[in-house]
Amino acid sequence: MKLCRFNNNRLGAVLGDSIADVSDALRILPQYTYPLPCFDPLIANLDAVLAQVSLLLPQAQRIPLGSVRLLSPVGSPGKIIAAPINYTRHLEEVLADKGINNGVESFTQHIRKSGLFLKANSSLAGAGEGVSLIHLDRRNDHEIELAIIIGREARNVPLDKALDYIAGYSIGIDMTIRGPEERSFRKSPDSYTILGPWMVTRDEIADPGKLEMTLRVNGQVRQAANTSDLILGVRELVEFASRFYTLYPGDVIISGTPEGVGPVVPGDVMRAEISGIGSMEIRARAGAC
Amino acid sequence: MKLCRFNNNRLGAVLGDSIADVSDALRILPQYTYPLPCFDPLIANLDAVLAQVSLLLPQAQRIPLGSVRLLSPVGSPGKIIAAPINYTRHLEEVLADKGINNGVESFTQHIRKSGLFLKANSSLAGAGEGVSLIHLDRRNDHEIELAIIIGREARNVPLDKALDYIAGYSIGIDMTIRGPEERSFRKSPDSYTILGPWMVTRDEIADPGKLEMTLRVNGQVRQAANTSDLILGVRELVEFASRFYTLYPGDVIISGTPEGVGPVVPGDVMRAEISGIGSMEIRARAGAC
Repeated sequence: MKLCRFNNNRLGAVLGDSIADVSDALRILPQYTYPLPCFDPLIANLDAVLAQVSLLLPQAQRIPLGSVRLLSPVGSPGKIIAAPINYTRHLEEVLADKGINNGVESFTQHIRKSGLFLKANSSLAGAGEGVSLIHLDRRNDHEIELAIIIGREARNVPLDKALDYIAGYSIGIDMTIRGPEERSFRKSPDSYTILGPWMVTRDEIADPGKLEMTLRVNGQVRQAANTSDLILGVRELVEFASRFYTLYPGDVIISGTPEGVGPVVPGDVMRAEISGIGSMEIRARAGAC
Repeated sequence: MKLCRFNNNRLGAVLGDSIADVSDALRILPQYTYPLPCFDPLIANLDAVLAQVSLLLPQAQRIPLGSVRLLSPVGSPGKIIAAPINYTRHLEEVLADKGINNGVESFTQHIRKSGLFLKANSSLAGAGEGVSLIHLDRRNDHEIELAIIIGREARNVPLDKALDYIAGYSIGIDMTIRGPEERSFRKSPDSYTILGPWMVTRDEIADPGKLEMTLRVNGQVRQAANTSDLILGVRELVEFASRFYTLYPGDVIISGTPEGVGPVVPGDVMRAEISGIGSMEIRARAGAC
Protein backbone atom coordinates (compact mmCIF):
# COMPACT_ATOMS: atom_id res chain seq x y z
CA MET A 1 0.00 0.00 0.00
CA LYS A 2 1.13 3.54 -0.79
CA LEU A 3 -0.26 5.94 1.82
CA CYS A 4 -0.07 9.67 1.29
CA ARG A 5 -1.13 12.76 3.21
CA PHE A 6 -2.40 15.68 1.16
CA ASN A 7 -4.09 19.10 1.14
CA ASN A 8 -5.59 19.83 4.57
CA ASN A 9 -4.25 16.73 6.40
CA ARG A 10 -6.26 14.28 4.31
CA LEU A 11 -5.23 10.63 3.95
CA GLY A 12 -4.96 8.98 0.56
CA ALA A 13 -4.22 5.57 -0.92
CA VAL A 14 -2.19 5.99 -4.12
CA LEU A 15 -3.48 3.95 -7.06
CA GLY A 16 -1.48 4.72 -10.21
CA ASP A 17 -2.17 8.31 -11.22
CA SER A 18 -4.97 8.85 -8.76
CA ILE A 19 -5.53 9.05 -5.04
CA ALA A 20 -8.41 7.42 -3.22
CA ASP A 21 -9.46 9.74 -0.37
CA VAL A 22 -9.56 7.44 2.66
CA SER A 23 -9.42 10.17 5.32
CA ASP A 24 -12.24 8.51 7.27
CA ALA A 25 -9.72 5.82 8.29
CA LEU A 26 -8.14 8.43 10.58
CA ARG A 27 -11.26 8.35 12.76
CA ILE A 28 -10.03 5.21 14.50
CA LEU A 29 -7.02 7.10 15.88
CA PRO A 30 -7.37 8.09 19.53
CA GLN A 31 -7.51 11.67 20.78
CA TYR A 32 -4.62 12.71 22.99
CA THR A 33 -4.36 14.97 26.00
CA TYR A 34 -1.25 16.53 27.48
CA PRO A 35 1.44 15.24 27.57
CA LEU A 36 1.41 14.17 23.92
CA PRO A 37 2.78 10.76 22.93
CA CYS A 38 6.39 10.51 21.74
CA PHE A 39 5.33 8.49 18.67
CA ASP A 40 3.37 9.14 15.49
CA PRO A 41 -0.24 8.02 16.14
CA LEU A 42 -0.90 6.95 12.54
CA ILE A 43 2.24 4.81 12.29
CA ALA A 44 1.70 3.36 15.78
CA ASN A 45 -1.76 2.23 14.66
CA LEU A 46 -0.82 1.40 11.08
CA ASP A 47 -2.36 -2.09 10.90
CA ALA A 48 -5.72 -0.82 12.14
CA VAL A 49 -5.59 2.16 9.76
CA LEU A 50 -4.74 -0.11 6.82
CA ALA A 51 -7.67 -2.38 7.67
CA GLN A 52 -9.98 0.65 7.58
CA VAL A 53 -8.43 1.83 4.32
CA SER A 54 -9.21 -1.55 2.71
CA LEU A 55 -12.84 -1.26 3.77
CA LEU A 56 -13.12 2.32 2.47
CA LEU A 57 -11.31 1.83 -0.86
CA PRO A 58 -14.18 0.52 -3.02
CA GLN A 59 -16.33 3.61 -2.34
CA ALA A 60 -13.56 6.17 -1.92
CA GLN A 61 -13.54 9.34 -4.03
CA ARG A 62 -10.77 9.33 -6.67
CA ILE A 63 -8.71 12.47 -7.16
CA PRO A 64 -6.03 13.00 -9.83
CA LEU A 65 -2.61 12.77 -8.19
CA GLY A 66 -1.44 15.88 -10.01
CA SER A 67 -4.16 18.01 -8.48
CA VAL A 68 -3.20 17.65 -4.81
CA ARG A 69 -0.59 19.22 -2.56
CA LEU A 70 1.43 16.39 -1.01
CA LEU A 71 2.36 16.65 2.67
CA SER A 72 4.96 14.62 4.56
CA PRO A 73 3.64 11.02 4.85
CA VAL A 74 4.74 11.06 8.51
CA GLY A 75 2.80 13.80 10.27
CA SER A 76 4.12 13.65 13.84
CA PRO A 77 7.59 12.09 14.01
CA GLY A 78 9.27 11.83 17.40
CA LYS A 79 12.70 12.31 15.90
CA ILE A 80 14.36 12.54 12.50
CA ILE A 81 17.66 10.71 12.38
CA ALA A 82 20.11 11.01 9.52
CA ALA A 83 23.19 9.12 8.42
CA PRO A 84 26.22 11.18 7.45
CA ILE A 85 28.48 9.98 4.67
CA ASN A 86 27.15 6.47 3.98
CA TYR A 87 28.18 5.89 0.33
CA THR A 88 31.85 5.39 -0.49
CA ARG A 89 31.81 7.53 -3.65
CA HIS A 90 30.09 10.37 -1.78
CA LEU A 91 32.90 10.22 0.80
CA GLU A 92 35.38 10.57 -2.07
CA GLU A 93 33.61 13.67 -3.45
CA VAL A 94 33.37 15.24 0.01
CA LEU A 95 37.09 14.72 0.54
CA ALA A 96 37.85 16.28 -2.85
CA ASP A 97 35.63 19.38 -2.57
CA LYS A 98 36.31 22.11 0.00
CA GLY A 99 32.94 23.62 -0.94
CA ILE A 100 31.40 20.55 0.67
CA ASN A 101 33.78 19.62 3.51
CA ASN A 102 34.52 23.22 4.49
CA GLY A 103 37.91 22.15 5.77
CA VAL A 104 36.34 20.43 8.79
CA GLU A 105 38.05 17.09 9.34
CA SER A 106 35.20 15.48 11.28
CA PHE A 107 32.85 15.93 8.32
CA THR A 108 34.73 13.19 6.50
CA GLN A 109 34.85 10.44 9.13
CA HIS A 110 33.55 6.92 8.58
CA ILE A 111 29.93 6.61 9.70
CA ARG A 112 30.78 4.12 12.47
CA LYS A 113 33.02 6.85 13.89
CA SER A 114 30.90 9.94 13.24
CA GLY A 115 27.65 8.26 14.29
CA LEU A 116 24.23 9.45 13.21
CA PHE A 117 22.84 12.95 13.62
CA LEU A 118 19.46 14.60 14.14
CA LYS A 119 17.38 16.96 12.05
CA ALA A 120 14.76 19.21 13.68
CA ASN A 121 11.18 17.93 13.53
CA SER A 122 10.28 21.50 12.53
CA SER A 123 12.31 21.05 9.31
CA LEU A 124 9.87 18.46 7.93
CA ALA A 125 7.79 19.22 4.82
CA GLY A 126 6.07 17.36 2.02
CA ALA A 127 6.91 17.48 -1.68
CA GLY A 128 3.97 19.80 -2.39
CA GLU A 129 5.20 22.34 0.12
CA GLY A 130 8.54 22.89 -1.60
CA VAL A 131 11.76 24.05 0.01
CA SER A 132 12.34 27.57 1.27
CA LEU A 133 16.06 28.32 0.95
CA ILE A 134 17.82 30.57 3.45
CA HIS A 135 21.42 31.76 3.79
CA LEU A 136 21.59 32.26 0.03
CA ASP A 137 25.14 33.57 0.42
CA ARG A 138 26.14 29.93 0.95
CA ARG A 139 25.80 26.71 -1.04
CA ASN A 140 22.44 25.01 -0.46
CA ASP A 141 22.78 21.39 -1.66
CA HIS A 142 20.32 18.63 -2.54
CA GLU A 143 20.87 15.18 -1.02
CA ILE A 144 18.50 12.37 -2.04
CA GLU A 145 18.21 9.52 0.46
CA LEU A 146 16.16 6.40 1.13
CA ALA A 147 14.01 7.17 4.19
CA ILE A 148 13.18 4.40 6.66
CA ILE A 149 10.03 4.85 8.77
CA ILE A 150 10.16 2.97 12.08
CA GLY A 151 7.02 0.96 12.87
CA ARG A 152 7.60 -0.43 16.38
CA GLU A 153 9.39 0.64 19.55
CA ALA A 154 12.96 -0.54 19.10
CA ARG A 155 15.87 -0.79 21.55
CA ASN A 156 19.01 -2.89 20.97
CA VAL A 157 17.51 -4.57 17.91
CA PRO A 158 19.50 -7.52 16.53
CA LEU A 159 20.56 -7.25 12.89
CA ASP A 160 18.51 -10.20 11.68
CA LYS A 161 15.29 -8.78 13.18
CA ALA A 162 15.83 -5.17 12.07
CA LEU A 163 13.44 -5.19 9.09
CA ASP A 164 10.58 -6.26 11.40
CA TYR A 165 10.79 -2.84 13.06
CA ILE A 166 10.17 -0.90 9.84
CA ALA A 167 6.70 0.36 8.84
CA GLY A 168 7.70 1.49 5.36
CA TYR A 169 9.85 3.65 3.14
CA SER A 170 9.80 7.07 1.51
CA ILE A 171 12.14 9.31 -0.41
CA GLY A 172 13.98 11.83 1.74
CA ILE A 173 15.62 15.03 0.55
CA ASP A 174 18.17 16.18 3.12
CA MET A 175 18.66 19.82 2.15
CA THR A 176 22.00 21.11 3.42
CA ILE A 177 23.54 24.52 3.89
CA ARG A 178 27.32 24.13 3.53
CA GLY A 179 29.46 25.69 6.21
CA PRO A 180 31.35 24.94 9.41
CA GLU A 181 28.36 24.33 11.71
CA GLU A 182 27.35 20.90 13.00
CA ARG A 183 25.08 19.01 10.68
CA SER A 184 22.13 19.05 13.09
CA PHE A 185 22.07 22.88 12.78
CA ARG A 186 22.71 23.69 9.14
CA LYS A 187 20.41 20.88 7.89
CA SER A 188 17.49 21.89 10.14
CA PRO A 189 15.96 25.11 8.79
CA ASP A 190 12.20 24.92 8.17
CA SER A 191 11.40 22.78 5.07
CA TYR A 192 14.96 21.36 4.81
CA THR A 193 13.73 17.78 5.29
CA ILE A 194 11.40 16.79 2.48
CA LEU A 195 9.69 13.42 2.89
CA GLY A 196 7.53 11.92 0.19
CA PRO A 197 5.83 11.49 -2.10
CA TRP A 198 4.16 8.90 0.19
CA MET A 199 5.02 5.95 2.41
CA VAL A 200 5.27 2.55 0.77
CA THR A 201 4.54 -0.14 3.36
CA ARG A 202 7.38 -2.56 4.04
CA ASP A 203 5.67 -5.55 2.37
CA GLU A 204 6.00 -3.85 -1.05
CA ILE A 205 9.80 -3.56 -0.90
CA ALA A 206 11.32 -7.03 -1.14
CA ASP A 207 14.88 -5.81 -0.63
CA PRO A 208 15.61 -2.22 0.48
CA GLY A 209 19.24 -2.87 -0.43
CA LYS A 210 18.49 -2.98 -4.18
CA LEU A 211 16.74 0.30 -4.97
CA GLU A 212 17.72 2.64 -7.81
CA MET A 213 17.61 6.34 -6.98
CA THR A 214 17.86 9.42 -9.19
CA LEU A 215 17.77 13.12 -8.47
CA ARG A 216 17.38 15.64 -11.29
CA VAL A 217 17.59 19.42 -11.07
CA ASN A 218 15.75 21.24 -13.87
CA GLY A 219 15.71 17.97 -15.83
CA GLN A 220 19.44 17.28 -15.53
CA VAL A 221 20.58 14.14 -13.65
CA ARG A 222 22.70 15.06 -10.64
CA GLN A 223 22.59 11.94 -8.46
CA ALA A 224 22.11 8.36 -9.71
CA ALA A 225 22.93 5.43 -7.44
CA ASN A 226 21.69 2.22 -5.90
CA THR A 227 21.13 1.42 -2.22
CA SER A 228 23.34 -1.63 -2.78
CA ASP A 229 26.25 0.82 -2.36
CA LEU A 230 25.26 1.88 1.17
CA ILE A 231 28.11 1.48 3.67
CA LEU A 232 25.66 0.75 6.51
CA GLY A 233 22.60 -0.85 4.94
CA VAL A 234 19.02 -0.53 6.16
CA ARG A 235 19.32 -3.34 8.72
CA GLU A 236 22.62 -2.02 10.05
CA LEU A 237 21.23 1.50 10.45
CA VAL A 238 18.29 0.27 12.56
CA GLU A 239 20.61 -1.89 14.66
CA PHE A 240 23.19 0.91 15.08
CA ALA A 241 20.61 3.60 15.99
CA SER A 242 18.74 1.37 18.43
CA ARG A 243 21.93 0.75 20.40
CA PHE A 244 22.10 4.47 21.27
CA TYR A 245 18.45 5.39 21.81
CA THR A 246 14.95 4.00 21.73
CA LEU A 247 13.25 4.29 18.36
CA TYR A 248 9.48 4.92 18.32
CA PRO A 249 6.79 4.40 15.66
CA GLY A 250 7.11 7.26 13.17
CA ASP A 251 10.77 8.00 13.89
CA VAL A 252 12.46 8.50 10.53
CA ILE A 253 15.97 7.45 9.54
CA ILE A 254 17.26 8.99 6.32
CA SER A 255 20.03 6.70 5.23
CA GLY A 256 22.63 8.97 3.65
CA THR A 257 23.13 10.37 0.19
CA PRO A 258 25.20 9.05 -2.72
CA GLU A 259 27.65 11.05 -4.84
CA GLY A 260 26.51 13.93 -7.04
CA VAL A 261 25.36 16.43 -4.42
CA GLY A 262 25.22 19.96 -5.72
CA PRO A 263 23.70 23.39 -5.35
CA VAL A 264 20.04 24.35 -5.60
CA VAL A 265 18.94 27.95 -6.03
CA PRO A 266 15.52 29.62 -5.83
CA GLY A 267 13.49 28.75 -8.94
CA ASP A 268 15.08 25.31 -9.36
CA VAL A 269 12.87 22.24 -9.61
CA MET A 270 14.14 18.96 -8.17
CA ARG A 271 12.72 15.63 -9.26
CA ALA A 272 13.54 12.68 -6.99
CA GLU A 273 12.81 9.05 -7.78
CA ILE A 274 13.44 5.75 -6.00
CA SER A 275 12.42 2.44 -7.61
CA GLY A 276 9.58 0.71 -5.79
CA ILE A 277 8.54 3.96 -4.12
CA GLY A 278 7.81 6.53 -6.84
CA SER A 279 8.86 10.04 -7.75
CA MET A 280 8.20 13.57 -6.56
CA GLU A 281 8.86 17.12 -7.66
CA ILE A 282 10.04 19.82 -5.24
CA ARG A 283 10.23 23.50 -6.06
CA ALA A 284 12.85 25.71 -4.42
CA ARG A 285 12.09 29.30 -3.49
CA ALA A 286 13.83 32.02 -1.49
CA GLY A 287 12.95 32.08 2.19
CA ALA A 288 13.13 34.99 4.61
CA CYS A 289 16.32 35.32 6.57
CA MET B 1 5.49 30.80 39.73
CA LYS B 2 7.39 27.52 39.90
CA LEU B 3 5.49 24.84 37.95
CA CYS B 4 6.48 21.19 38.23
CA ARG B 5 5.28 17.92 36.80
CA PHE B 6 5.38 14.90 39.08
CA ASN B 7 4.40 11.27 39.64
CA ASN B 8 1.83 10.20 37.04
CA ASN B 9 1.84 13.41 34.92
CA ARG B 10 0.44 15.57 37.72
CA LEU B 11 0.92 19.34 37.76
CA GLY B 12 2.21 21.13 40.84
CA ALA B 13 2.93 24.65 42.02
CA VAL B 14 6.06 24.66 44.17
CA LEU B 15 5.71 26.58 47.46
CA GLY B 16 8.86 26.26 49.55
CA ASP B 17 9.21 22.64 50.64
CA SER B 18 5.79 21.56 49.44
CA ILE B 19 3.87 21.14 46.21
CA ALA B 20 0.29 22.23 45.71
CA ASP B 21 -1.38 19.68 43.43
CA VAL B 22 -3.03 21.83 40.74
CA SER B 23 -3.50 19.08 38.15
CA ASP B 24 -7.07 20.19 37.50
CA ALA B 25 -5.63 23.21 35.67
CA LEU B 26 -4.65 20.82 32.85
CA ARG B 27 -8.36 20.33 32.07
CA ILE B 28 -8.41 23.56 30.09
CA LEU B 29 -5.90 22.14 27.58
CA PRO B 30 -7.49 20.98 24.31
CA GLN B 31 -7.53 17.40 23.11
CA TYR B 32 -5.59 16.77 19.92
CA THR B 33 -6.15 14.48 16.98
CA TYR B 34 -3.65 13.38 14.35
CA PRO B 35 -1.44 15.09 13.27
CA LEU B 36 -0.25 16.27 16.68
CA PRO B 37 0.85 19.88 17.15
CA CYS B 38 4.54 20.75 16.87
CA PHE B 39 4.44 22.67 20.16
CA ASP B 40 4.00 21.82 23.84
CA PRO B 41 0.30 22.32 24.68
CA LEU B 42 0.93 23.39 28.29
CA ILE B 43 3.53 26.01 27.38
CA ALA B 44 1.46 27.23 24.42
CA ASN B 45 -1.44 27.82 26.83
CA LEU B 46 0.67 28.93 29.79
CA ASP B 47 -1.22 32.12 30.66
CA ALA B 48 -4.55 30.29 30.78
CA VAL B 49 -3.03 27.44 32.83
CA LEU B 50 -1.47 29.92 35.29
CA ALA B 51 -4.84 31.66 35.71
CA GLN B 52 -6.40 28.30 36.59
CA VAL B 53 -3.56 27.50 38.96
CA SER B 54 -4.18 30.76 40.85
CA LEU B 55 -7.84 29.84 41.27
CA LEU B 56 -7.01 26.32 42.47
CA LEU B 57 -4.15 27.20 44.84
CA PRO B 58 -6.13 28.10 47.98
CA GLN B 59 -7.85 24.69 48.07
CA ALA B 60 -5.07 22.59 46.54
CA GLN B 61 -3.74 19.56 48.38
CA ARG B 62 -0.20 20.09 49.76
CA ILE B 63 2.36 17.32 49.29
CA PRO B 64 5.91 17.33 50.71
CA LEU B 65 8.36 18.05 47.87
CA GLY B 66 10.62 15.23 48.99
CA SER B 67 7.89 12.62 48.56
CA VAL B 68 7.28 13.04 44.81
CA ARG B 69 9.03 11.84 41.68
CA LEU B 70 9.81 14.89 39.57
CA LEU B 71 9.26 14.66 35.80
CA SER B 72 10.56 17.02 33.12
CA PRO B 73 8.68 20.33 33.47
CA VAL B 74 8.26 20.36 29.68
CA GLY B 75 6.27 17.28 28.72
CA SER B 76 6.05 17.54 24.93
CA PRO B 77 8.88 19.63 23.47
CA GLY B 78 9.05 20.04 19.71
CA LYS B 79 12.83 20.17 19.75
CA ILE B 80 15.68 20.33 22.24
CA ILE B 81 18.43 22.67 21.12
CA ALA B 82 21.80 22.85 22.80
CA ALA B 83 24.72 25.24 22.68
CA PRO B 84 28.18 23.74 22.31
CA ILE B 85 31.12 25.38 24.05
CA ASN B 86 29.62 28.64 25.33
CA TYR B 87 31.87 29.50 28.29
CA THR B 88 35.46 30.61 27.64
CA ARG B 89 36.98 28.59 30.48
CA HIS B 90 35.14 25.47 29.34
CA LEU B 91 36.67 25.98 25.89
CA GLU B 92 40.08 26.11 27.55
CA GLU B 93 39.52 22.82 29.40
CA VAL B 94 38.20 21.12 26.25
CA LEU B 95 41.30 22.23 24.34
CA ALA B 96 43.55 20.92 27.14
CA ASP B 97 41.92 17.49 27.62
CA LYS B 98 41.99 14.83 24.90
CA GLY B 99 39.54 12.83 27.02
CA ILE B 100 37.01 15.55 26.23
CA ASN B 101 37.94 16.77 22.74
CA ASN B 102 38.80 13.31 21.42
CA GLY B 103 41.22 14.86 18.95
CA VAL B 104 38.32 16.20 16.86
CA GLU B 105 39.13 19.74 15.79
CA SER B 106 35.54 20.81 15.15
CA PHE B 107 34.60 20.08 18.78
CA THR B 108 36.59 23.15 19.82
CA GLN B 109 35.24 25.78 17.44
CA HIS B 110 33.71 29.08 18.58
CA ILE B 111 29.94 28.76 18.97
CA ARG B 112 29.25 31.27 16.16
CA LYS B 113 31.16 28.88 13.89
CA SER B 114 29.97 25.52 15.22
CA GLY B 115 26.35 26.62 15.56
CA LEU B 116 23.86 24.93 17.84
CA PHE B 117 23.01 21.23 17.90
CA LEU B 118 20.00 19.06 18.68
CA LYS B 119 19.30 16.46 21.34
CA ALA B 120 16.65 13.77 20.77
CA ASN B 121 13.26 14.46 22.34
CA SER B 122 13.41 10.83 23.49
CA SER B 123 16.43 11.70 25.68
CA LEU B 124 14.33 13.91 27.99
CA ALA B 125 13.76 12.93 31.63
CA GLY B 126 13.00 14.58 34.94
CA ALA B 127 15.21 14.72 38.04
CA GLY B 128 13.19 11.98 39.74
CA GLU B 129 13.75 9.58 36.87
CA GLY B 130 17.54 9.64 37.14
CA VAL B 131 20.01 8.96 34.36
CA SER B 132 20.61 5.53 32.86
CA LEU B 133 24.24 5.41 31.70
CA ILE B 134 25.23 3.38 28.64
CA HIS B 135 28.56 2.78 26.89
CA LEU B 136 30.23 2.45 30.27
CA ASP B 137 33.51 1.71 28.49
CA ARG B 138 33.64 5.45 27.74
CA ARG B 139 33.59 8.63 29.80
CA ASN B 140 30.04 9.75 30.63
CA ASP B 141 30.24 13.40 31.73
CA HIS B 142 27.89 15.77 33.57
CA GLU B 143 27.25 19.21 32.08
CA ILE B 144 25.06 21.63 34.03
CA GLU B 145 23.37 24.33 31.93
CA LEU B 146 20.74 27.04 32.21
CA ALA B 147 17.73 25.83 30.19
CA ILE B 148 15.57 28.35 28.33
CA ILE B 149 11.96 27.34 27.60
CA ILE B 150 10.50 29.10 24.58
CA GLY B 151 7.01 30.55 25.11
CA ARG B 152 5.96 31.91 21.70
CA GLU B 153 6.52 31.03 18.06
CA ALA B 154 9.74 32.79 17.13
CA ARG B 155 11.40 33.43 13.77
CA ASN B 156 14.15 36.01 13.14
CA VAL B 157 13.70 37.53 16.58
CA PRO B 158 15.58 40.82 17.17
CA LEU B 159 17.98 40.83 20.12
CA ASP B 160 16.10 43.45 22.12
CA LYS B 161 12.84 41.48 21.94
CA ALA B 162 14.34 38.04 22.64
CA LEU B 163 13.32 37.76 26.31
CA ASP B 164 9.66 38.29 25.33
CA TYR B 165 9.76 34.90 23.60
CA ILE B 166 10.76 33.00 26.75
CA ALA B 167 8.19 31.22 28.97
CA GLY B 168 10.63 30.38 31.75
CA TYR B 169 13.80 28.68 32.89
CA SER B 170 14.92 25.33 34.29
CA ILE B 171 18.16 23.58 35.10
CA GLY B 172 19.39 21.32 32.30
CA ILE B 173 21.86 18.46 32.66
CA ASP B 174 23.37 17.65 29.28
CA MET B 175 24.76 14.16 29.86
CA THR B 176 27.50 13.40 27.35
CA ILE B 177 29.27 10.27 26.20
CA ARG B 178 32.78 11.27 25.10
CA GLY B 179 33.94 9.99 21.73
CA PRO B 180 34.31 10.92 18.08
CA GLU B 181 30.59 10.97 17.15
CA GLU B 182 28.63 14.14 16.46
CA ARG B 183 27.16 15.73 19.56
CA SER B 184 23.56 15.13 18.46
CA PHE B 185 24.24 11.36 18.64
CA ARG B 186 26.35 10.78 21.74
CA LYS B 187 24.31 13.23 23.86
CA SER B 188 20.94 11.69 22.89
CA PRO B 189 20.59 8.31 24.63
CA ASP B 190 17.39 7.90 26.66
CA SER B 191 17.52 9.99 29.90
CA TYR B 192 20.63 11.97 28.80
CA THR B 193 18.74 15.29 28.95
CA ILE B 194 17.56 15.99 32.49
CA LEU B 195 15.31 19.03 32.87
CA GLY B 196 14.15 20.24 36.24
CA PRO B 197 13.43 20.46 39.00
CA TRP B 198 10.61 22.67 37.66
CA MET B 199 10.06 25.64 35.35
CA VAL B 200 10.37 29.10 36.88
CA THR B 201 8.29 31.55 34.88
CA ARG B 202 10.19 34.38 33.22
CA ASP B 203 8.84 37.10 35.53
CA GLU B 204 10.72 35.58 38.49
CA ILE B 205 14.16 35.91 36.88
CA ALA B 206 15.07 39.58 36.62
CA ASP B 207 18.30 38.93 34.72
CA PRO B 208 19.11 35.47 33.30
CA GLY B 209 22.65 36.72 32.76
CA LYS B 210 23.42 36.83 36.49
CA LEU B 211 22.66 33.35 37.81
CA GLU B 212 25.03 31.28 39.96
CA MET B 213 25.20 27.59 39.12
CA THR B 214 26.78 24.68 40.97
CA LEU B 215 26.99 20.98 40.21
CA ARG B 216 28.15 18.54 42.87
CA VAL B 217 28.86 14.84 42.46
CA ASN B 218 28.56 12.84 45.69
CA GLY B 219 28.77 16.11 47.62
CA GLN B 220 31.93 17.39 45.91
CA VAL B 221 31.73 20.60 43.86
CA ARG B 222 32.63 19.93 40.22
CA GLN B 223 31.17 22.93 38.37
CA ALA B 224 30.65 26.41 39.81
CA ALA B 225 30.04 29.36 37.50
CA ASN B 226 27.80 32.28 36.68
CA THR B 227 25.76 32.85 33.53
CA SER B 228 27.48 36.25 33.29
CA ASP B 229 30.36 34.28 31.71
CA LEU B 230 28.26 32.96 28.79
CA ILE B 231 29.81 33.75 25.38
CA LEU B 232 26.36 33.97 23.75
CA GLY B 233 23.93 35.08 26.45
CA VAL B 234 20.26 34.16 26.69
CA ARG B 235 19.10 36.92 24.31
CA GLU B 236 21.80 36.09 21.76
CA LEU B 237 20.93 32.37 21.82
CA VAL B 238 17.26 33.05 21.05
CA GLU B 239 18.20 35.49 18.30
CA PHE B 240 20.82 33.13 16.81
CA ALA B 241 18.57 30.03 16.89
CA SER B 242 15.57 31.85 15.44
CA ARG B 243 17.60 32.91 12.42
CA PHE B 244 18.01 29.24 11.41
CA TYR B 245 14.64 27.72 12.29
CA THR B 246 11.28 28.54 13.79
CA LEU B 247 11.08 28.09 17.55
CA TYR B 248 7.78 26.87 19.02
CA PRO B 249 6.29 27.02 22.52
CA GLY B 250 8.00 24.33 24.59
CA ASP B 251 11.15 24.19 22.51
CA VAL B 252 14.07 24.07 24.92
CA ILE B 253 17.48 25.71 24.49
CA ILE B 254 20.14 24.50 26.92
CA SER B 255 22.70 27.24 26.92
CA GLY B 256 26.04 25.47 27.29
CA THR B 257 28.07 24.28 30.25
CA PRO B 258 30.87 26.00 32.15
CA GLU B 259 34.23 24.50 33.09
CA GLY B 260 34.53 21.54 35.45
CA VAL B 261 32.85 18.81 33.40
CA GLY B 262 33.81 15.35 34.55
CA PRO B 263 32.82 11.71 34.68
CA VAL B 264 29.75 10.18 36.31
CA VAL B 265 29.50 6.46 37.01
CA PRO B 266 26.59 4.26 38.11
CA GLY B 267 25.81 4.90 41.77
CA ASP B 268 26.86 8.56 41.68
CA VAL B 269 24.46 11.24 42.86
CA MET B 270 24.52 14.63 41.13
CA ARG B 271 23.12 17.73 42.81
CA ALA B 272 22.52 20.69 40.49
CA GLU B 273 21.58 24.18 41.63
CA ILE B 274 20.93 27.49 39.86
CA SER B 275 20.10 30.62 41.83
CA GLY B 276 16.54 31.82 41.32
CA ILE B 277 15.47 28.39 40.07
CA GLY B 278 16.27 25.83 42.78
CA SER B 279 18.14 22.56 43.10
CA MET B 280 17.65 18.94 42.15
CA GLU B 281 19.25 15.58 42.79
CA ILE B 282 19.82 13.04 40.02
CA ARG B 283 20.89 9.44 40.57
CA ALA B 284 22.99 7.64 37.95
CA ARG B 285 22.50 3.95 37.29
CA ALA B 286 23.76 1.49 34.68
CA GLY B 287 21.52 1.17 31.64
CA ALA B 288 21.24 -1.75 29.24
CA CYS B 289 23.45 -1.65 26.19
